[in-house]
Amino acid sequence: MVAEIICVGTELLMGNTVNTNAAFLARGLADLGISVYYQTVVGDNVSRLTDAVHTALDRSDIIITSGGLGPTEDDLTKETVCAAMGIELIEDPHTRQRIEEFFKRFRKGRIVTDNNWKQAMIPKEGFAIDNDNGTAPGIVCEKGEKRAILLPGPPHELKAMFTDKVVPYLAKLQPDRLYSRMIKIAGVGESNVETRILDLIDNQTNPTIAPYAKMGEVHLRITAKASSEEEGMALIEPVAAELRKRFGKAIFTEEESETLEDVVIGMLRERGFSIATAESCTGGLISGRLINVPGASDVLNESYVTYSNEAKERLVGVSHETLLAHGAVSEETAAEMAKGAALAANAEVGLSATGIAGPGGGRPDKPVGLVYIGCSVKGKTEVRRFEFRGSRENNRSHTVQCALILLRDMLLFTVDCI
Amino acid sequence: MVAEIICVGTELLMGNTVNTNAAFLARGLADLGISVYYQTVVGDNVSRLTDAVHTALDRSDIIITSGGLGPTEDDLTKETVCAAMGIELIEDPHTRQRIEEFFKRFRKGRIVTDNNWKQAMIPKEGFAIDNDNGTAPGIVCEKGEKRAILLPGPPHELKAMFTDKVVPYLAKLQPDRLYSRMIKIAGVGESNVETRILDLIDNQTNPTIAPYAKMGEVHLRITAKASSEEEGMALIEPVAAELRKRFGKAIFTEEESETLEDVVIGMLRERGFSIATAESCTGGLISGRLINVPGASDVLNESYVTYSNEAKERLVGVSHETLLAHGAVSEETAAEMAKGAALAANAEVGLSATGIAGPGGGRPDKPVGLVYIGCSVKGKTEVRRFEFRGSRENNRSHTVQCALILLRDMLLFTVDCI
Repeated sequence: MVAEIICVGTELLMGNTVNTNAAFLARGLADLGISVYYQTVVGDNVSRLTDAVHTALDRSDIIITSGGLGPTEDDLTKETVCAAMGIELIEDPHTRQRIEEFFKRFRKGRIVTDNNWKQAMIPKEGFAIDNDNGTAPGIVCEKGEKRAILLPGPPHELKAMFTDKVVPYLAKLQPDRLYSRMIKIAGVGESNVETRILDLIDNQTNPTIAPYAKMGEVHLRITAKASSEEEGMALIEPVAAELRKRFGKAIFTEEESETLEDVVIGMLRERGFSIATAESCTGGLISGRLINVPGASDVLNESYVTYSNEAKERLVGVSHETLLAHGAVSEETAAEMAKGAALAANAEVGLSATGIAGPGGGRPDKPVGLVYIGCSVKGKTEVRRFEFRGSRENNRSHTVQCALILLRDMLLFTVDCI
Repeated sequence: MVAEIICVGTELLMGNTVNTNAAFLARGLADLGISVYYQTVVGDNVSRLTDAVHTALDRSDIIITSGGLGPTEDDLTKETVCAAMGIELIEDPHTRQRIEEFFKRFRKGRIVTDNNWKQAMIPKEGFAIDNDNGTAPGIVCEKGEKRAILLPGPPHELKAMFTDKVVPYLAKLQPDRLYSRMIKIAGVGESNVETRILDLIDNQTNPTIAPYAKMGEVHLRITAKASSEEEGMALIEPVAAELRKRFGKAIFTEEESETLEDVVIGMLRERGFSIATAESCTGGLISGRLINVPGASDVLNESYVTYSNEAKERLVGVSHETLLAHGAVSEETAAEMAKGAALAANAEVGLSATGIAGPGGGRPDKPVGLVYIGCSVKGKTEVRRFEFRGSRENNRSHTVQCALILLRDMLLFTVDCI
């Protein structure tokens, strides 16, 4: 089965937006074992979109579009694709009702302007996919052997809809499937990971290992083509075992959807520990990321953003002498912030970050990107020093990631000691 | 003049790489006033790439490709494009010499394997563009009125080559350029904005207005085609003035790179105010976003993550009675959190958020997505109620955005009162 991706949007053609939707959809189709030979980007223009749809339907079984489903005059993907496929549009009472409810709940007092109702029109041969994150529903057109799946452009709407609704729909159309397992590694660099698995990658046919690096993590996806899940897993398991042998505790999860913050919150919960952060350069982002996890309230009651020196002293008890002798960005201050956060919140664990995020504020001995991260677990404290180089935003994101890695390392150690 | 972008690479089709080259090239072409109607991604496959090149040359004056210029067997962009255009390849002594020098300087001790020499082959009708960051030169093919510009895939090679060599080449072919201005609006929905400018969009030719929505903001780009910056700005200014009249204070900036947090930090600084946040469901993300801004320390000394009820009482003085009577997620609690944050930090401004981010914790009267955002400026407090719907992460991002909008509204009002 061959699919083709068509992304609709003048902002893509103008280069105002990077086409992350195409990469997301391509990755999802690859996981399903569906081949993609072409991706196209076209503007909000009826004749050119019509051309692109005809070309795509001639050479592929399925087309997936993103964008152009909204209420404005520019949004014409649905009308154009249905016209190209010779499919009539009819009003869907269910979708109309959902739009009404959306406005009632989220746009109180705002009038539902007429243009919104065109979003309730759906193909006679096909169906709508509910949008839980916006008003424009997704659309599936079915004409003979051809399928067109139309998704909204905003990435969070598109991603949720593709994962929850489109993947199960496509899986039914495709017998031989890809099965995969994910192994997520933290705290080991990408090229280090790749070097250590080069022999496995060089000899691979089925299953394959695909490394994917994101900030401070490397995700290894093991993928096997098989006719059943049992067969797929039997192919995958020996490779997974080998990777476990090679990377040991650097593997923080094998769950596809589990994040590093999920893991550390789980570890805190298991141990009956609570945590508080004291943050300077990260300004609350570490705490914010921990609270990403539903139920984080079991282990986190409060945290402190201590940006000024005075706040470091008053809120988490960093000593005036330490700040004078070593400065706010120092191993000593990071240690006292971590200990102090735990103490102030009456928590077992304190986590701190203090650094020079940039672009200003650097000095020869304390350059931009210098960050100290501290973690204190039941009185035992460790501080790690980093020199990041990148934008302010980048340095702060790296700091959050490295703080979670330090926390995980400390918690692993805690269990080893018991 | 119309150009078309073709990106060559299996890694793009598989979704392993996000196509940042396409966005970069599109932006550069837009700045030159060259229209782009299609972008295509195709794998390293002769017959499909040939099809894509023929289609593109039929409908466009210029094609620009990225990728597939390297030394390996998979790299076949140059051979394929030249064959499609009927152009012969000949060896270029200058390029051959550059490859030899590159290996001498950067690949000491490595043998220049035979496949490298194919990079020295250049079109008889056209020329090579020196690559200062790698071995594969760029290629320009010129056949009649058609041009094909082939660039290497690695973004740093492509970007340098495009900016330094291709832009001047294209500028000579194209007298008119595009000039643009950005107008950013917060707190007005996308379809509302579009409805209010429909008449302008319907009648536009030069300049044009392109709306682009991102969470809680709508960005309007006004673009004019002109032969000089003066002429361009003269075309843009009346449209900008009209938009200012229609959207007034909802416009938070006209600076391309300025963010909402930049603006509110600037407003606080102008007024000599400092700010502290008290955050429950956002867990520090509002404070974290404010501290995105370099120099935020002028206006933010500390903030509080008050996730538990007990922390709300102890850290920012929410009264026990309020929590009992109205609950943690209530207008009253949000107001006391905002006032209490300002008081505890001895700041002029307090900003608070308390809500049910989900997925659990919802009740009929307090559903998932219910959020109260409070802002207190010099004792005057306002609370806004929201019902977001989406993932936990999404609800929290929306909350951060709406908190900054409320803060800006309150600060605007402060100036009006002076």
